[in-house]
Amino acid sequence: MKRFPLALLSVLLAPSAVLAAEGMWTLDNPPLQAMQKDFGHAPDKSWFEHVMHSSARLADGCSGSFVSAEGLVLTNHHCVASCVQQLSTATEDHMRDGFLAHTRPEERACPAMEVNRLDAITDVTSTVKDATKGRQGEAFTAAFNAIKAKLSAECVGKDASTVRCDVVDLYHGGQYKIYRYHRYQDVRLVFAPEQSIAFFGGDPDNFNFPRYDLDMSMVRVYENGQPAQVKDFFAFNAKGPEADEPVFVSGHPGSTQRSLTVAQLEQLRAVTLPATLLRLSEYRGRLIQYRSEGTEQARTANADLFYTENSFKVRKGQLAALDTPVLMAAKQADEAALRHFVASHPELAATTGGAWDAIAKALKHYGDFREAEMQIEGAQAFNTRLFQIARTLVRGAVERNKPDADRLPEFNTAALPQVEAHLFSKAPIYPALEKFKLEFSLSKMRELLGADAPLTKQLLGKDSTQALADRLVDGSQLADVAVRHQLWDGGEAAIRASKDPFIQLALSIDDQSRALRKRYESEVESVVQKNSELIAQARFIQTGTGVYPDATFTLRLSYGRVQGWKEGEAQVPPFTTMGGAFDRATGAAPFALPESWLKARDRINGDTRFDLAASNDIIGGNSGSPLLNQKAELVGLIFDGNIHSLGGAYRYDGTQNRAVAVDTAAITEALDKIYGAQEILKELGAR
Amino acid sequence: MKRFPLALLSVLLAPSAVLAAEGMWTLDNPPLQAMQKDFGHAPDKSWFEHVMHSSARLADGCSGSFVSAEGLVLTNHHCVASCVQQLSTATEDHMRDGFLAHTRPEERACPAMEVNRLDAITDVTSTVKDATKGRQGEAFTAAFNAIKAKLSAECVGKDASTVRCDVVDLYHGGQYKIYRYHRYQDVRLVFAPEQSIAFFGGDPDNFNFPRYDLDMSMVRVYENGQPAQVKDFFAFNAKGPEADEPVFVSGHPGSTQRSLTVAQLEQLRAVTLPATLLRLSEYRGRLIQYRSEGTEQARTANADLFYTENSFKVRKGQLAALDTPVLMAAKQADEAALRHFVASHPELAATTGGAWDAIAKALKHYGDFREAEMQIEGAQAFNTRLFQIARTLVRGAVERNKPDADRLPEFNTAALPQVEAHLFSKAPIYPALEKFKLEFSLSKMRELLGADAPLTKQLLGKDSTQALADRLVDGSQLADVAVRHQLWDGGEAAIRASKDPFIQLALSIDDQSRALRKRYESEVESVVQKNSELIAQARFIQTGTGVYPDATFTLRLSYGRVQGWKEGEAQVPPFTTMGGAFDRATGAAPFALPESWLKARDRINGDTRFDLAASNDIIGGNSGSPLLNQKAELVGLIFDGNIHSLGGAYRYDGTQNRAVAVDTAAITEALDKIYGAQEILKELGAR
Repeated sequence: MKRFPLALLSVLLAPSAVLAAEGMWTLDNPPLQAMQKDFGHAPDKSWFEHVMHSSARLADGCSGSFVSAEGLVLTNHHCVASCVQQLSTATEDHMRDGFLAHTRPEERACPAMEVNRLDAITDVTSTVKDATKGRQGEAFTAAFNAIKAKLSAECVGKDASTVRCDVVDLYHGGQYKIYRYHRYQDVRLVFAPEQSIAFFGGDPDNFNFPRYDLDMSMVRVYENGQPAQVKDFFAFNAKGPEADEPVFVSGHPGSTQRSLTVAQLEQLRAVTLPATLLRLSEYRGRLIQYRSEGTEQARTANADLFYTENSFKVRKGQLAALDTPVLMAAKQADEAALRHFVASHPELAATTGGAWDAIAKALKHYGDFREAEMQIEGAQAFNTRLFQIARTLVRGAVERNKPDADRLPEFNTAALPQVEAHLFSKAPIYPALEKFKLEFSLSKMRELLGADAPLTKQLLGKDSTQALADRLVDGSQLADVAVRHQLWDGGEAAIRASKDPFIQLALSIDDQSRALRKRYESEVESVVQKNSELIAQARFIQTGTGVYPDATFTLRLSYGRVQGWKEGEAQVPPFTTMGGAFDRATGAAPFALPESWLKARDRINGDTRFDLAASNDIIGGNSGSPLLNQKAELVGLIFDGNIHSLGGAYRYDGTQNRAVAVDTAAITEALDKIYGAQEILKELGAR
Repeated sequence: MKRFPLALLSVLLAPSAVLAAEGMWTLDNPPLQAMQKDFGHAPDKSWFEHVMHSSARLADGCSGSFVSAEGLVLTNHHCVASCVQQLSTATEDHMRDGFLAHTRPEERACPAMEVNRLDAITDVTSTVKDATKGRQGEAFTAAFNAIKAKLSAECVGKDASTVRCDVVDLYHGGQYKIYRYHRYQDVRLVFAPEQSIAFFGGDPDNFNFPRYDLDMSMVRVYENGQPAQVKDFFAFNAKGPEADEPVFVSGHPGSTQRSLTVAQLEQLRAVTLPATLLRLSEYRGRLIQYRSEGTEQARTANADLFYTENSFKVRKGQLAALDTPVLMAAKQADEAALRHFVASHPELAATTGGAWDAIAKALKHYGDFREAEMQIEGAQAFNTRLFQIARTLVRGAVERNKPDADRLPEFNTAALPQVEAHLFSKAPIYPALEKFKLEFSLSKMRELLGADAPLTKQLLGKDSTQALADRLVDGSQLADVAVRHQLWDGGEAAIRASKDPFIQLALSIDDQSRALRKRYESEVESVVQKNSELIAQARFIQTGTGVYPDATFTLRLSYGRVQGWKEGEAQVPPFTTMGGAFDRATGAAPFALPESWLKARDRINGDTRFDLAASNDIIGGNSGSPLLNQKAELVGLIFDGNIHSLGGAYRYDGTQNRAVAVDTAAITEALDKIYGAQEILKELGAR
């Protein structure tokens, strides 16, 4: 099989013809020419290095930035909401009332939060490709996992507690790079405002603009019990940006699907997204009603509802985008042109002509076992933290006895620090909530697999879904962190001897679950991976222009300007003001301002810019990203996109897609006038 | 504009080339040749007349059959579930425990139930077409409503309380007929088994087969306080049918979409069905959790959950069918062929060539105001019986002052008996449930129209959705039937003077609601109506073969055989047995058998056939239909279809689509051995 040499690939990646502001660029390959053209100036190498080292990643799915030499990290409230809820109790609700540590000792450790800082990027494409060359299916997956484990382990060396290395797949197998991070696992909460202002407008206003949210929080990374000293951090510009000012977003977009084939998009449209939406929708209904049953139910299920509604709205926007005839027509035309190009070049046709059909066939084949794979290996049937713990214990006991190269990748030596942090997290577990969640997921399993499916019968037997959920949760000791330590340290013998019902459940399904995973990896994932890579290579050859890779929750830079957009006939202005929040408030949730704001009303300058819109190309995972000016000063805090940005999963439209950020002017005004957080302002250099 | 004469149309409707068993045929145009060919025998005219007069329609959406000269009607449990629930109290739950009247005085009146028997069908096509000829948009709608009101009123004469006449649109405007019914409004519950056996397997087993449900009930129609005497009724065959026996279903399929254009199907696929599914899914989640909060919540929201889950599963099956590439490809090919045929006949091209694009354009235009129209005029925002009552009172006061021809059709003189029956229904109204339902619908309105939509602001003001729902329900007197009588009798003056918050709500939105309705009717509905008619006519000319009209909740006959089907590699047998129910039972809902069954286990012959599958072409609305043998004896009771039958909305597939019925053998065995309903068996002639 002919391969296109990597050198050629690198040349072709030089950007030139992409639309202004489109793109989530890796920091080792920024679109300098386009920036030069659009802004009359492109940053230099030291600018990118500074931005890279001042940016932060929250390992569970958000972005952030270092804003002081003492390890202070700025991110969104919704990125630390789980921690804020976990640090709350029935009598002390920090989601409702906010949190502010005036002194270091008051800063409180977030259970299982990890912050990463990207230190270096190394190309390992040829090493990975050599290791997998000529392999298919299961052999491909095994070789691929083995080389990734080896490269990660070599990169981490003996510093697993402070170094994290991920092998990153860019351009769907076109390039492989090692991203080496500094790992911080002692992360402490410094500041979080009340959720009512962090998420003012609630679900109705989510993904909308104009907007009035102080969706900010601050955490601090510690090392050896002391605030971590960091060399690079962003200067805090308390004034914020001006309209039309060029701005950059440096963050970790999670996932885009801009290079997918039409068959893949069609599968998302007809299968994956509808199924996910229907599940989220019903779960949302259950959660809303559950939360209405009492203050403790409301408190403990608060973050669950936020994530559910947020995911729902994202996917609903994505489905709407895929149902836009113009989008699908453009994708079809683009694919047809590329297929024609491939067909008319005999060498390419020989290697790549069958790639699209191969992917379509693999997806169709996946349909035969997708539901079972999702329910069991994807654990959709067991929506409770207790099962996650049990599975980690059961699999960890087996996997840790194997050489690194043979393990399931999530148990590679390099991955264990994060696994252990989650496993031993002191986050409270509420039995009533776990029963509620598990019952829902068991009932969906029965619905989706069918009452007569072997797994349904095996699990439910003569039980109702509620009886089984109650029995499992009531009988389990896994809420006790000490029990988890015993089982983790005790290894396979301890696991086999355990009478814990979740351990027994995880054991009882492990063989069939692993079999489904292996089938998925060898018959679907590896086929898609191989053929996507061929298509990506053909596209480079066809276009001869620079492109950016789909988002992979790795550091990217996007550039744009502070600007509104035209909604129908109306021009949406790029800024809102703090006074606007008082105008919009009704006094009833989700439009009720917190007491602290109502009390401070006279002290606040109502003209202070609050939230803003910018044309930067972002997506979920960018939450908490710094918005930077050309001097790399922090002028805003990304927390959302407008409704049009949801279609950005598949295509960026510069006339409509907007990122939404908190203006640093509002951060400053709120910390000063409302929260009296003078220590923080001082640390930011804003006082 | 050239029209094809009706005579031609009638000739073309003579059936010949339709697939065996496909079709929901009107009883004045049965597929005699096909029956003759398939069964070696076709029924004669008197057979059809007897079947027509022995069949019954439950006006709120089900079918049934007369089974004694004393007005006894057999239908499904789920068709009378609302009544059973309405007749229940916190201390006497007939849904849970069942109901049996051993004597006539014990039979209990169902609030607002209406049973119809079709007495005559009259063709009025030319009258209707003459009245609307040359009119477009609003003028068309007005003329169309006026002629329908006139024809109905003439047909009803002075007997509105016992005669009901509906102008029925067949073949999407190809034919208009008057269906004259005998109307029974005094309907009393005679027998309902426990819901746990009527709906054994619950939602998991719904639309599945093999099945073990006694989904039956019996009501009796009364006239002048006495059981109604009926001339025609079906003989009850206590043995049930044999495998492969020819069987007929005579019932009222509600709605099929087999003649829709590709644009209409695409709109269903991309817009209507997903939106409905997401709403139902969330509502389902809320209802399940609400019902878990206490026995009274469980009881009062029982029927709501059934209808929600049932609708959800139906629409999910429909969406899956539309996402089947083969179905859409067939529809596209069919439409392309018809368009080609039209284009190649100049006369047809001139009248009909633009019909498809006109429909597509109207649908696209509807998108501009669809959500508002659904929320306000469709009353999706106000999901409570109290609002329905208020709207009926508010509009009824105005409309009843107008001449019949100018009224909203639902307030035509001929329609008032059913309007009043619903308005003055003594069905209990539970404030807690109404608040729950209303809050949900208000929150969806805010979500779907947006927090900044004028209507959202007008309705919610500074309220939360819960506060508004509570205030409206707590402040209303409309749960009191006497208050409704006062307002209905008091007319416009009483309405204007009312301080009832629901009356004021209905008044406050009535202008904009009527405006949206008018816009829909004149800019969408009438356009679709006119152009669908043109397409239907072109199709008759093209195919030269008989076709049946899309279902319209009017009496239809379908024919087929008792038979299973092949599911993958497995052959599904056509019968289950009563013993099988005991095997399937787990003791936990929804697989728990009622006490009465457990106690009677030794007395029951386990080999008795319970449920059966047949190849008849049915759809929702057929619930409760009699399954008949060639002698027009009742051998079964339709209550469901298999999962493949859900795609029947768009296309019948004789290899897979199956109707599901209760075997009369099981009805007999259960009435005898379990319920001791000897009176009923005697009345059925089965003893």
